[in-house]
Order: sequence, then structure tokens, then C-alpha cells
Amino acid sequence: MTNSILINHIKTYVTFSEEELSEIVLFFDYHSYHKKETLLLAGKQCNKLFFVLKGCLQLYFIDNLGNQKTSQFAIEHWWLTDFLAFQNQNQSNFYIETVENSKIVSISFSKYQELLDTFPKMEKYFRTIYETAYGAALMRFKYINSFSKEELFFRFRDNFPEFVQRVPQYLLASFLGLTPEYLSEIKRK
Amino acid sequence: MTNSILINHIKTYVTFSEEELSEIVLFFDYHSYHKKETLLLAGKQCNKLFFVLKGCLQLYFIDNLGNQKTSQFAIEHWWLTDFLAFQNQNQSNFYIETVENSKIVSISFSKYQELLDTFPKMEKYFRTIYETAYGAALMRFKYINSFSKEELFFRFRDNFPEFVQRVPQYLLASFLGLTPEYLSEIKRK
Repeated sequence: MTNSILINHIKTYVTFSEEELSEIVLFFDYHSYHKKETLLLAGKQCNKLFFVLKGCLQLYFIDNLGNQKTSQFAIEHWWLTDFLAFQNQNQSNFYIETVENSKIVSISFSKYQELLDTFPKMEKYFRTIYETAYGAALMRFKYINSFSKEELFFRFRDNFPEFVQRVPQYLLASFLGLTPEYLSEIKRK
Repeated sequence: MTNSILINHIKTYVTFSEEELSEIVLFFDYHSYHKKETLLLAGKQCNKLFFVLKGCLQLYFIDNLGNQKTSQFAIEHWWLTDFLAFQNQNQSNFYIETVENSKIVSISFSKYQELLDTFPKMEKYFRTIYETAYGAALMRFKYINSFSKEELFFRFRDNFPEFVQRVPQYLLASFLGLTPEYLSEIKRK
């Protein structure tokens, strides 16, 4: 059952009674998507926060030349949205799209506020999630500033071999700031 | 009074009684530092979380060639540490150093846990802080992937002119992934 994945994730961080958990899950919506479906549009109000039960999401933007550029991936048990736009209820700076067929949990901004007000212990859950996510972002800035794009690719492949198998080459290239041609060239070496 | 800056920042996000606030401030330590003092050492256990009352901190690492590279700055009202290492009580991947003479609040990991347990509403405060910080990191990934290093410099200068005045050139160059020589060259154009 899809609910159990999110419940187990929440239970890793915070203790709730079974009754509380059965109420908490009602705040969320559950949807299955095919590959390449759009869940969030840049330029539209960012009203949803997403959690990956199964599959993969990408957060991307389109640059001045019309190229799609990935800023973040989310696989199983990751939360994703344009957090600044979500928090301020502004227009999104990013698109969110499924990379694979995916099972996704979502929560609207108003339900998120209601959830946090009704179950304040969920603050601890999200505090811990975001603390980790921000910490990981600082490490990513370190990697970006430490290595050439070529070295970044090899490090990424060594650290996340399964992920590199899962994700199309052109998306991985875009995430690492490489052109697809350059990635093909590196891989031939 | 230095306490009032942190109290006012907390009050922006969460409502506490004056009595609660007077207890909360006791969890924190307050120190003044000169420019270029080290607050956190890479390779040592990361046991402190910092808040800038006045001044500026930088989070940096030293690359294989011995160059200091800045991953993050924190000015007034920003929290900073190696969050992954702090959360897991591991060795820090970064150094933290004052960029200017600074007044800094710090809290140890055990006091942070005690604070969150004693005043669960502080979870909301830090949840909001980290939500914003992670959202800002996603925007920074977007900028890094959108612009050449030269364009990044000009965008940064236009968006944060006061900050560019405050911070030494070589640190700004390091933050933007430029060599100081390249930054000088750009600025001459």
C-alpha cells in the first residue's frame, strides 16, 4: 500500500500513534504518473510539495537558448518542489516532470500549513528533511567547486552507479552542466 | 543588546512568551571574533551551529592544490554550519572563518537537541529557516547552470552590490569559481 511508504518514512524521524498517522495520511494526495508527465509549470503559482514513493522526478528550467536544464533529481523518499516559491506562494522558477513512471504523494500549500498546525511534530520531520537537504546542497557546491565537469561525471558515476543507470544520459549531462555531446565524448574515453 | 537580535529573528517566525524567550536565549553562547578567526575546523567533529548577529562568516574547504574555496557566506541573521556533519555528529568537511570582525551566536549539538525538545516550537523556526536555505540553494544551482562564470559575477554584483563591497575580491572569486586573476580581468573590461 502506497500510504505505508510515507508513514514508514515519517516514523523514521518522529513518533506518532497509529491513530495520528491514519489522520496524517489524509492530508496527502496520491497519484501515479507516466514518464515525462509535468507536475509543476514554471511561471505558475507553486502550490504543491511532492514526495516520491516510487520513480524519479526532475526539477528543471529552460534557458535562454531553449535548452532544458536539470537542477535537482528526486528519487524514492525525497521531497521536491521550488521551495522558495512554495513558501512564498509565488510563481515557480522551475518545472517538475517525471523521469520514469512514478508514484507520487503531493500536498497543497494550505494542507501543508494545516498539517503543521494540527500535528506540530511534523515540524520536526520537515526540519530534519530540510536540514539534510541543505547540508547535501552545501556538499554539492563543494563538489562543483572542486572538480572539472569531467571529474564530476566520474565521481557521480562512482558514487551513484544505480542512479546513473536509471536516468537518461541527456538529463544526467544537463544536471552536471555538460552538453550531451561532451558527455558522450567523456564516456568514449 | 546582542540577545535582542536573535530574539527578534525568532519572533518573526514563531510566537513565544517573554518568559519562554528569556529561557531560550540561555541555550546559546555569544562571542565576538576578529576578522579571519577560525570557528570550525575541517576534519574535526562538527559540534556547533552558528548565527551571525553582526559581521560575516564563510564556509570553505581547501582543494588538492591547497587553494581555499568558499562554498557559502553567512551575513547578519543567517545560520551556518556543515549541516550534514552537524546532524550526524561527523567530522566537518569545511572550515568556518570570520570574514570581518563579527558577533556570533553558537549552539552545541547537545544544546540544540535539548532546545528543540524543551521548546518544540523552535522546530517550526528551524524548519522555516532550512526550507528557505534549501530553496535558495536550488536557485543557486539554477544560476550556476544558467550563466558563464563572467555573467555570474555581473549578476551577483547587480543583485548584491553591498555584499560585493564588503567581501574581499579573492573570496568572491573563490565563491563564484573564478581565479582572482580572472576576476581582475573581468572587472577591467
